[in-house]
Amino acid sequence: KKRYNITLLPGDGIGPEVISIAKNVLQQAGSLEGVEFSFREMPVGGAALDLVGVPLPEDTISAAKDSDAVLLGAIGGYKWDKNEKHLKPETGLLQLRAALKVFANLRPATVLPQLVDASTLKKEVAEGVDLLVVRELTGGIYFGEPRGIKTNENGEEVGFNTEVYAAHEIDRIARVAFETARKRRGKLCSVDKANVLDSSILWRRRVTALAADYPDVELSHMYVDNAAMQLVRDPKQFDTIVTNNVFGDILSDEASMITGSIGMLPSASLSDSGPGLFEPIHGSAPDIAGEDKANPLATILSAAMLLKYGLGEEKAAKRIEDAVLGALNKGFRTRDIYSNGTKLVGCKEMGEEVLKSV
Amino acid sequence: KKRYNITLLPGDGIGPEVISIAKNVLQQAGSLEGVEFSFREMPVGGAALDLVGVPLPEDTISAAKDSDAVLLGAIGGYKWDKNEKHLKPETGLLQLRAALKVFANLRPATVLPQLVDASTLKKEVAEGVDLLVVRELTGGIYFGEPRGIKTNENGEEVGFNTEVYAAHEIDRIARVAFETARKRRGKLCSVDKANVLDSSILWRRRVTALAADYPDVELSHMYVDNAAMQLVRDPKQFDTIVTNNVFGDILSDEASMITGSIGMLPSASLSDSGPGLFEPIHGSAPDIAGEDKANPLATILSAAMLLKYGLGEEKAAKRIEDAVLGALNKGFRTRDIYSNGTKLVGCKEMGEEVLKSV
Ligand SMILES: CC(C)[C@H](C(=O)O)[C@@H](O)C(=O)O
Ligand SMILES: CC(C)[C@H](C(=O)O)[C@@H](O)C(=O)O
Repeated sequence: KKRYNITLLPGDGIGPEVISIAKNVLQQAGSLEGVEFSFREMPVGGAALDLVGVPLPEDTISAAKDSDAVLLGAIGGYKWDKNEKHLKPETGLLQLRAALKVFANLRPATVLPQLVDASTLKKEVAEGVDLLVVRELTGGIYFGEPRGIKTNENGEEVGFNTEVYAAHEIDRIARVAFETARKRRGKLCSVDKANVLDSSILWRRRVTALAADYPDVELSHMYVDNAAMQLVRDPKQFDTIVTNNVFGDILSDEASMITGSIGMLPSASLSDSGPGLFEPIHGSAPDIAGEDKANPLATILSAAMLLKYGLGEEKAAKRIEDAVLGALNKGFRTRDIYSNGTKLVGCKEMGEEVLKSV
Repeated sequence: KKRYNITLLPGDGIGPEVISIAKNVLQQAGSLEGVEFSFREMPVGGAALDLVGVPLPEDTISAAKDSDAVLLGAIGGYKWDKNEKHLKPETGLLQLRAALKVFANLRPATVLPQLVDASTLKKEVAEGVDLLVVRELTGGIYFGEPRGIKTNENGEEVGFNTEVYAAHEIDRIARVAFETARKRRGKLCSVDKANVLDSSILWRRRVTALAADYPDVELSHMYVDNAAMQLVRDPKQFDTIVTNNVFGDILSDEASMITGSIGMLPSASLSDSGPGLFEPIHGSAPDIAGEDKANPLATILSAAMLLKYGLGEEKAAKRIEDAVLGALNKGFRTRDIYSNGTKLVGCKEMGEEVLKSV
């Protein structure tokens, strides 16, 4: 019988609620496919700050590194908003990504037929959208040095960051993207700002060179400002998008909102070897934390990505995906995706409905 | 009688067509308000590259600097896409912004009742959108040093750029934004990535400090990824947005597409003193250049912004704005904003219709 060690990082806000549900779903799907899990729960973000004074304790790092995959809830909240940078919950998340070297962040944005009305886009524009953003996650301006706030010769403060990509960083994320596109509809759009940024010029050059290894993938390039427009104009034109850390942050959030159901969207962050990090793309929603109102589906679907991309357990993953569709088809909806004629349920009940159909 | 010197920079693609129309409209509106213009046409972008081998000739710079305002058509085209960076049409535009020190770029995104159907957003989401992005235009990662592509110790290529803002650069764009918001609905949203970037931490701190001088303006802060989402979810929540160069590039294009009528949207780029630069936000559309299909309204409305923000000629500006609405109300539409039941016209005819009602 296969056994996997999973690190659970509930984090803040609605994190604990959605993680406890996803854990049950994972266990159920695994047991039906002859797979067992040992779970270890560790603190991260604001929870870790409150407990031990840092947003990513050493113990959490080693537990995560020693496990087969990491499932994260959400981090952050008003309480820690005014903290200094090294004591912000978000800093813990960035440190975790760096510690696990998860350079490839996969963010699908899919409009399910059941939820097409949730989009603010017209039905004919939204329906059938099925794209995936491959975002570089451990480089670029998020981590580049030098960075800081210093006082210049005139006694004036200057804030600065460095956008930087080495060739091998571009190549490895591009390879993940080409391979992902190959398993999808074979179309890859690389997004950059090569008409202005030197880092983007190198990015475009490397991605273009790699295309020779993937003759079955159709590669195109787009400037980031145009991509931000095209996502609104005609999101269906996209299959797989690959881009840098900060552009990926912006475009993947825009794409997720286009689906109208951000409470549905999972993500996977993968390294070359080592455990992957799986998390819903929504935030910690402190305003509804503990009120049984959160949508657990994004975390449940992140557990499915964990099975598929993290452990290669495609069958168990499929069980979860189908169970989510099952619950939706029966008409169950949390508040964020509710519409007339459907059945409004809380976080727990939605979890139970999914569990039933796993 | 008041006289102004206007530098016209037709540029590339549809640029010359739309500039020649806007020129006539400007002249007409001026003459009805007792204002005269001398126009001087100069090359920029690809047109300048073909003529003299650089995208922004010295003569063009001095003509622009010596004039009271600059009206630009559009720059760029396939022909020069493979040029090296210093020989790209876009580089000419960046150099022009730097030479004129136009640090404040105002980009309105308005959904006119006549054109609400052109948006890909649902009618109830799109109607009434009336926001303005104040984008910092001469600093940040667009111009920051060091920048380049170098070979590192391992013989590997590395591409890098510097995002950098000095306190005074933040303060001056923030002041423009507060003052703009004050003249609008009194709401200012400052967009940054202060949970990750040091430059954004300084940005947020300076903007927050300045708010004391504008007690009548309601200031809020938003992370750029969230802003990209909120523009799709509920664009009506925004009045004035202020942000840095690269975030402004992305968000203003996203906002413009939300209106669905990018062929309608003008922009103004202003300096502390000196002439402003006015241009449509659309590109050079090389695919329809010379075919009398372009929408001249964005350039005509840029001429109105030139009158209002560049010369303080509010009455003449109002004439142009009303004339544009007049032509739309009569049902005239260019291809890009055409819908059933309206009258399809070419670029010239649309120009004539506007001219009639000035
Ligand atoms: C919380 C923040 C640091 C993070 C990021 O910018 O990467 C978040 O926005 C995300 O996209 O996961
Ligand atoms: C053409 C390009 C350099 C320019 C920019 O990025 O500023 C354009 O996208 C714009 O927004 O005016």
